[in-house]
Amino acid sequence: MTTPSLEQIIAGINPMDSEVEKKAQERTTQLVMPPRALGQLHNTAEKLCGICGQLTPVIDKKAVIIMAGDHGVAASGVSAFPQEVTGAMIQTFLAGGAGINAIARYVDAAVYVVDMGVIPAIDASKMPNAQFFMDRKIAPGTADFTKGPAMSHDQAEKSLVNGFECATNAFEGGVDLLATGDMGIGNTTPSAAIGMVVTGADADTMVGRGTGVDDEGLQIKKKVITNGIQHNQPDPSNGLDVLAKVGGFEIGGIAGMILAAAYHRKPVIVDGFISTAGALLAHTLCPTVVEYMFAGHRSEEPGHIIMLNYLGLSPLIQLELRLGEGTGAALAMNIMEASLRVFNEVMTFEEAGVPI
Amino acid sequence: MTTPSLEQIIAGINPMDSEVEKKAQERTTQLVMPPRALGQLHNTAEKLCGICGQLTPVIDKKAVIIMAGDHGVAASGVSAFPQEVTGAMIQTFLAGGAGINAIARYVDAAVYVVDMGVIPAIDASKMPNAQFFMDRKIAPGTADFTKGPAMSHDQAEKSLVNGFECATNAFEGGVDLLATGDMGIGNTTPSAAIGMVVTGADADTMVGRGTGVDDEGLQIKKKVITNGIQHNQPDPSNGLDVLAKVGGFEIGGIAGMILAAAYHRKPVIVDGFISTAGALLAHTLCPTVVEYMFAGHRSEEPGHIIMLNYLGLSPLIQLELRLGEGTGAALAMNIMEASLRVFNEVMTFEEAGVPI
Repeated sequence: MTTPSLEQIIAGINPMDSEVEKKAQERTTQLVMPPRALGQLHNTAEKLCGICGQLTPVIDKKAVIIMAGDHGVAASGVSAFPQEVTGAMIQTFLAGGAGINAIARYVDAAVYVVDMGVIPAIDASKMPNAQFFMDRKIAPGTADFTKGPAMSHDQAEKSLVNGFECATNAFEGGVDLLATGDMGIGNTTPSAAIGMVVTGADADTMVGRGTGVDDEGLQIKKKVITNGIQHNQPDPSNGLDVLAKVGGFEIGGIAGMILAAAYHRKPVIVDGFISTAGALLAHTLCPTVVEYMFAGHRSEEPGHIIMLNYLGLSPLIQLELRLGEGTGAALAMNIMEASLRVFNEVMTFEEAGVPI
Repeated sequence: MTTPSLEQIIAGINPMDSEVEKKAQERTTQLVMPPRALGQLHNTAEKLCGICGQLTPVIDKKAVIIMAGDHGVAASGVSAFPQEVTGAMIQTFLAGGAGINAIARYVDAAVYVVDMGVIPAIDASKMPNAQFFMDRKIAPGTADFTKGPAMSHDQAEKSLVNGFECATNAFEGGVDLLATGDMGIGNTTPSAAIGMVVTGADADTMVGRGTGVDDEGLQIKKKVITNGIQHNQPDPSNGLDVLAKVGGFEIGGIAGMILAAAYHRKPVIVDGFISTAGALLAHTLCPTVVEYMFAGHRSEEPGHIIMLNYLGLSPLIQLELRLGEGTGAALAMNIMEASLRVFNEVMTFEEAGVPI
């Protein structure tokens, strides 16, 4: 397809089919078990029915798309790891050796990696699985948002559209369940900034240790984020402005993927803290996107639950994960599939001949 | 094998291999991710290594064993469903139409059903999948524990040994991951009684709505349980006495399965409220069993988390399930398998060439 503009994307997003969702809820009441005894499995299956517009949605082809980017603000000592790790991890993803690769192989999902703006030039042609790499580099890392905006408004829009295109390609290739993933040393810092601006939470509740900064590092991180927000004054009602001023290229890419899922009426599983920051941006641009989102997991990052509550999403996995890469979202794919098996395969009271 | 006596079973249970678990923890530190960034997945894999006594444990053959029984106390109006449902559900399990069947098919686990003491005579020979049914009926339902003990000490011991035998058969048949399940109208009532006696919690915190009693039913249930405990005076330090006085045949069977897992050094996933009541009994008989247990999920039944905290177990799934049948434990099988994939397949920092 010809890629629509951001305005056209937003205008092209419609609510899910609530009539089909209601019919699905009616079927759940007939299943041979106490009312809604499988809790969130029912909600999940019913939402999938509404998204897909049918009572027999199929999850066949699954993919995780990892958006990677570097961050100017990493120079301020907000991460426990050196910035070189971002580029090195792209190679590890393609070599199949990262956490997400092991989990994605288990759940039978393909792993794609997108360079949205990492510092090194990535020559994927020499790497294994080069066909799973996409070069959408906007710039070699964002600018340091303590000194000015992280990127221009044009770059912010481009990161959204790039993300939209990557997800659209996946859906056009037959993917019917997409998980978002992220890689970017320092990226809990812009994510916390986005979380604070959009939800209104303060630094003490929103900012966590990321990959593992110590107490001193945590205080630095809080100060850096607070300064960045004060300096840039992002407009909370304008996702594009928030992204440009305190965001990141991979976070914009994730927001773009979420817009694409809603645009194409496909389910998308949002991973942890960074991905949910992307979801907040997408939600600010178009609140309807939440109807197409599932929260993969609840991250150990303390601000994550504030973001999820803001969006009204319940996490499918709670295993104290804090890796990113799409790991929590990929694990949740099994829960989503199991929910459909329950919905489609469990007998009704009448079929089973069980007295109520 | 010749079935050992209960005393021999308890004497035959040894701790897991903590040296192997330590070696597994060392390997985790080398994986190309921030320290223990995949949270409970790491703990799960390491515990599996300790249980199996090797760094490459294999989960190949999986099974859920559903223990079924009826309860004299059901006559006191403690359940939202009629007692006939217990027997009818056995037929539904064998027909493959229940919630657990859908989930077990998804996770590739066999489903066995054991009549530990339901009221109707079950003629499985006329049913499909009769080979998955085991007749271990001790009596057609327990006695009403508000009027005396639910069963004799001999029956309690027999229910433990029957459960031990069923699980032992599964392990001897090659099962390397076992999930416990339960079916028995009214069985949140004896389970809450066991929970109160063993953990010391009161009725207001331990007793919930089960399959869905209303406010009045909940008050009746609390009174029935409190009366039953006062009338029978079970000894909290003696699991056999607690089982006999306020337990159930299927709960004893579950406790026996857990003893079997520890005895044979096999991992067992404990399902929700009823299964964890069985786990409390097994733990009272032999505290070492907890080293072989995984908590499948956190049930919606409010007392469940008190039981889990008492045992020091963290649930793998939290999806507001309250069905039983082994559904939460079966869902957790995927998490367990994924944990091993991460443990075995993720590269080390050195292998990946990623700077720390």
